[in-house]
Amino acid sequence: MSDPLHIAGKTYQSRLLIGTGKYKDFEQTRQAVEASGAEIVTVAVRRTNLGQEPGEPNLLDFVTPDKYTILPNTAGCFNAEDAVRTCKLARELLDGHNLVKLEVLGDQKTLYPNIAHTVRAAQQLVDDGFDVMVYTNDDPIVAKELEDMGCVSVMPLGSLIGSGLGVLNPHNLLLIMEEAKVPILVDAGVGTPSDATLAMELGCDGILMNSAIAHAREPVLMASAMKKAIEAGREGFLAGRMPKRVFANPSSPSEGLISRD
Amino acid sequence: MSDPLHIAGKTYQSRLLIGTGKYKDFEQTRQAVEASGAEIVTVAVRRTNLGQEPGEPNLLDFVTPDKYTILPNTAGCFNAEDAVRTCKLARELLDGHNLVKLEVLGDQKTLYPNIAHTVRAAQQLVDDGFDVMVYTNDDPIVAKELEDMGCVSVMPLGSLIGSGLGVLNPHNLLLIMEEAKVPILVDAGVGTPSDATLAMELGCDGILMNSAIAHAREPVLMASAMKKAIEAGREGFLAGRMPKRVFANPSSPSEGLISRD
Amino acid sequence: MSDPLHIAGKTYQSRLLIGTGKYKDFEQTRQAVEASGAEIVTVAVRRTNLGQEPGEPNLLDFVTPDKYTILPNTAGCFNAEDAVRTCKLARELLDGHNLVKLEVLGDQKTLYPNIAHTVRAAQQLVDDGFDVMVYTNDDPIVAKELEDMGCVSVMPLGSLIGSGLGVLNPHNLLLIMEEAKVPILVDAGVGTPSDATLAMELGCDGILMNSAIAHAREPVLMASAMKKAIEAGREGFLAGRMPKRVFANPSSPSEGLISRD
Amino acid sequence: MSDPLHIAGKTYQSRLLIGTGKYKDFEQTRQAVEASGAEIVTVAVRRTNLGQEPGEPNLLDFVTPDKYTILPNTAGCFNAEDAVRTCKLARELLDGHNLVKLEVLGDQKTLYPNIAHTVRAAQQLVDDGFDVMVYTNDDPIVAKELEDMGCVSVMPLGSLIGSGLGVLNPHNLLLIMEEAKVPILVDAGVGTPSDATLAMELGCDGILMNSAIAHAREPVLMASAMKKAIEAGREGFLAGRMPKRVFANPSSPSEGLISRD
Repeated sequence: MSDPLHIAGKTYQSRLLIGTGKYKDFEQTRQAVEASGAEIVTVAVRRTNLGQEPGEPNLLDFVTPDKYTILPNTAGCFNAEDAVRTCKLARELLDGHNLVKLEVLGDQKTLYPNIAHTVRAAQQLVDDGFDVMVYTNDDPIVAKELEDMGCVSVMPLGSLIGSGLGVLNPHNLLLIMEEAKVPILVDAGVGTPSDATLAMELGCDGILMNSAIAHAREPVLMASAMKKAIEAGREGFLAGRMPKRVFANPSSPSEGLISRD
Repeated sequence: MSDPLHIAGKTYQSRLLIGTGKYKDFEQTRQAVEASGAEIVTVAVRRTNLGQEPGEPNLLDFVTPDKYTILPNTAGCFNAEDAVRTCKLARELLDGHNLVKLEVLGDQKTLYPNIAHTVRAAQQLVDDGFDVMVYTNDDPIVAKELEDMGCVSVMPLGSLIGSGLGVLNPHNLLLIMEEAKVPILVDAGVGTPSDATLAMELGCDGILMNSAIAHAREPVLMASAMKKAIEAGREGFLAGRMPKRVFANPSSPSEGLISRD
Repeated sequence: MSDPLHIAGKTYQSRLLIGTGKYKDFEQTRQAVEASGAEIVTVAVRRTNLGQEPGEPNLLDFVTPDKYTILPNTAGCFNAEDAVRTCKLARELLDGHNLVKLEVLGDQKTLYPNIAHTVRAAQQLVDDGFDVMVYTNDDPIVAKELEDMGCVSVMPLGSLIGSGLGVLNPHNLLLIMEEAKVPILVDAGVGTPSDATLAMELGCDGILMNSAIAHAREPVLMASAMKKAIEAGREGFLAGRMPKRVFANPSSPSEGLISRD
Repeated sequence: MSDPLHIAGKTYQSRLLIGTGKYKDFEQTRQAVEASGAEIVTVAVRRTNLGQEPGEPNLLDFVTPDKYTILPNTAGCFNAEDAVRTCKLARELLDGHNLVKLEVLGDQKTLYPNIAHTVRAAQQLVDDGFDVMVYTNDDPIVAKELEDMGCVSVMPLGSLIGSGLGVLNPHNLLLIMEEAKVPILVDAGVGTPSDATLAMELGCDGILMNSAIAHAREPVLMASAMKKAIEAGREGFLAGRMPKRVFANPSSPSEGLISRD
C-alpha cells in the first residue's frame, strides 16, 4: 500500500520522525534511528555538534544527510529572536538547507510553547524563505493561523515534552486536523507504542518523538516497537474501525443516562 | 528477537489469534488470516463447515491444518453439556485433535460468559484429556481456579464479544497476570489496533479477535494493522517504557490533591 | 423531592451506606456517620465489639440501633461456612435482626470476592430467612443469579476493597442495572466524591464505602463531601444530562475515524 | 466551614457561577439561579435585555442586582474591538459597574477563544479600570500572562462551550493552578455533576456553567445537583483523598510495566 507523507516537496514512506538527543552516545542514536525506520531526524542545533566543534564527534557522521533528512530544531530557545538566529545558524551549517523545526518555549520548567513568540518567529522565518515545521500547543485557532502564514507542517503537542503522558486532549487534535491542509504531526508527549497507535488512529499524519525511545529501558527495541505502532495506527485509520456496540437497551431505566463516555 | 508463545506443547511466533466468522466469504477469511500472520485460527464448530456438510465449501480448504493450528471453539453453547458435546464433535472432525477453546455463554444478548457452567465444563474436558483454552470473565479468583484445574490457557474478556470497546478493566487483567503461570490471552472486546497494543503493553501473552478485523471497513488491511499492533505492544512491554513525568510541584497547594489518575 | 431507597421493607432517604472500621476511635466513627447522613451503617461482626466483649467500648453505644439500621457484615470470611456462621452470630447479638451483608473473600491479598462460595452462602442464608445484601464481582450473570435467588440487594464492586480506584468498569455496572429489580449498590472502590457522583449518575441505587471516608486526611469533612456527592449524582441522574456535542464535521476526513470514545 | 471565594474585593460563599441564556424564559432562569445557590450570574450583553429594549422583559427584574453580582460578558464577540466596546456598553447599562467577563471567540463553529485578541482586549480593559475575568484556552503560559497583566480571575475552558465533554485536559489545569495567585475558574465544558466535582477536586476555585443546567432535561433539579456537586468537590479537595492502592507486586513480571495510568 503506497501512502506517503509529503513535507516541503519531499516524499516519505515513514510517518515516524525522531529526535537524536538523550541517547547514551551517537552509536546508540544511530542504531535507534535505524530500527525506527525514520527518514526525518531532528537535531537540537544548540546542543548537538553538527560541525561547530571541529575536534568532537559529529552527529552527521552517524546519521548521515545522504540517508536522512536532517531537521534542525530550536530546542532551548525561549524567545523569537533566539529561535530565528538559531535557524539561520543551522542553514549555514547545513549548506543552505531550508527545512527547520521551530520551537519557542515558555519556561524552563514545563517547556510549554510560548505561542506569541512562536507566531512571531514563524512569520519571520517564512518571510526569510525557510520551510517551517512548527511546534505549538493544541489550540485550533493558533494552528490555523500558523498554516495560513505558510508553515509547511503544524506540530501540536500531545502533552509536555519529556512527560510521556500521551495525547491528553484528542478532541483538540481532531479540531486541528479537521481544518488542516498541511500535515499535522504530534510532537511531544507520546510515551508508549499505544500512545503512538492511538494518535495515528485519530488521523494525524505522523509523530515526532525522542524521550519515548531514548529513555526506554531498551531504546533500540523500543524504536522498533514505535515503527510498528505507527504503521499499525495508520493502517487502522485507513482500514476503518468496526462499529462500537454498547449493549444498553434504550427503553431501559438507563435512558437519559449520564454516562462516562 | 526470539520471543515465542508456548501453548500445549507447541511454539508460536505470532501472538495474534484470530476467528474465522463474520467475513464475506472463505476467500476473504483466508486473505485476512494470511495478512494477520496468525498461526492459531479459531473456528465455531456449530456454525462453520469443517466437513459436517459434505457438498458445501469447507473452511479447512482455505485455512489449512497443515499451515495453521485449528482451534475449535464452542461459540453458541449456553450450558456445560452442549459445550462438552461440541468439543467431542470437534475432536472427531479433526481426527483426535485435543486443543479446544471453551466458551459457555450466559445469555443471548450480552454473550457474557456463564462462569459456573464454564468451570464445570472445563473440569470435564480436562478430565477427558482435552487441552483446554478457556474464555472467562476478568475475575482473578476464577482465572486462578481454571489454571489450577489444568487449563492450558486462560482467556479473560477485555469487554463483551462483538462490542469493540477495548479492555475496560486493565487492573483486573494485571491481577490475573500477576498470579498466572499459563498464557493469559485477551479474548473479546478489542476493537482497534491501539486496544491491542495497550493490552500487550499490560503484559498479556496474546490476543484473540474476530470482529475487529472482520467488521472493519477493510478487513485485510485491518488484519495487517493488528499484526503490527500486537508486535508493537509486545516489543514495548519488553523494552520498558520511559518513566512518566508529571510537572507538579509537591510543595504547591495541589498537595493532597484529588487527581484524575 | 421525595426519592427514597427501599431495602427489605424499609425506606431510607439517604443513598450512602457507610462502614465503621478504620477510624481513630468510636467517637470519630460517630462524627463521620453523622456528617455523612447515612441511615444504614455496616459493622464487621468479627472485628467490632457489639457486646461480645462486655468490658470494652461497644460500637452500639456510639452508633445506636434506634437511630441507624445496623448492617452486620462478614468481612474476614474466606469460605461459605464461616460467612453463614458469622451471620447467625450477628442475628443473636442483635436480637433476631435478619438483615445482613454477605461477603466471602477470595484471598487475603486482593480481597476479591469468591463467587462460588458467595453463591452457596447466599442460598443458605436466604433459605434460613435472612434478608441478604450481597457483595459480588461485576459479572452480570452472577448478579442476576443472586437476585433470582432472593437477595434483597446486589452489591457489585467498583474496584478492590480499600483501593480507592473508583468504578473501573462502568459498562458492567450498566449491564447489571439494566436487568435488576432489586437495588444495586456499589460496594468497594470509591475513593473520591467524584467517583461517587459518577457511580450515581450511572443509575446505581446507592453506594457503600468505608476507606474513602475513614482514610481521608479529614474524615468528618470527607463524610460531608460524600453526602453531597451522592445527592448530586442522584439528582443529576434524575435531571438528565445535557446532550454531548462533538464538533466534528461528518463530511470531513475524520469520517470512519478510530476515536478515543 | 468558612471557605469563601474572593473576586475583585468581594467575598462569595458559592463557587458556582452560572449563565442566564438558553432557558425557556426568565422565570425558569430565576428558578435555576435560585436552586444553584450562585451569587455571581453572567449575562451576555449582546443577547439579553438589561434595559436596552425598554418595552421588553428585563432579566434584571428576575435576577436582581441587589441579590446577585451581575457579570456582563462579551459572548458573540469575535475580535478585541467588539469585546471592549461591549464591556463599555455594559458599564453604562449597569451604572459604572466595573466587573466584566471577557471572551473573544475564534470562530462561529467551535467558539474556541482567540487568544491574541483576548490578550489585547484584556490589556485595554485593565488599563481602562475594568475588573476583568477572562475566558481563555488551557495554555499555562497564556494564563500567567493574563494574571500578570492584572486580570482578577483567569477562566480556562474545560472543553468547548456547549459541548458538555467535561475537563478534557486536567493536567493543563493543574499547571495553571500551580502558578496562579488569582482565582482559577473553569469556564465551559462541564456537562455533568461529576464533571464539576472532578474539576473542584483538582483544586480549581470555582466553575462557571450554563448549558449543563439550561439544557438538562430538568434544569432546576440539575441546578440543585450542580450546587451539591461543587460543594462535594471542594470539600473533597480540602479533606484530602485516601491514598490509592494498586495491588501489583513490584517483584512480579509486571515490573517495568507499560500501564494505563
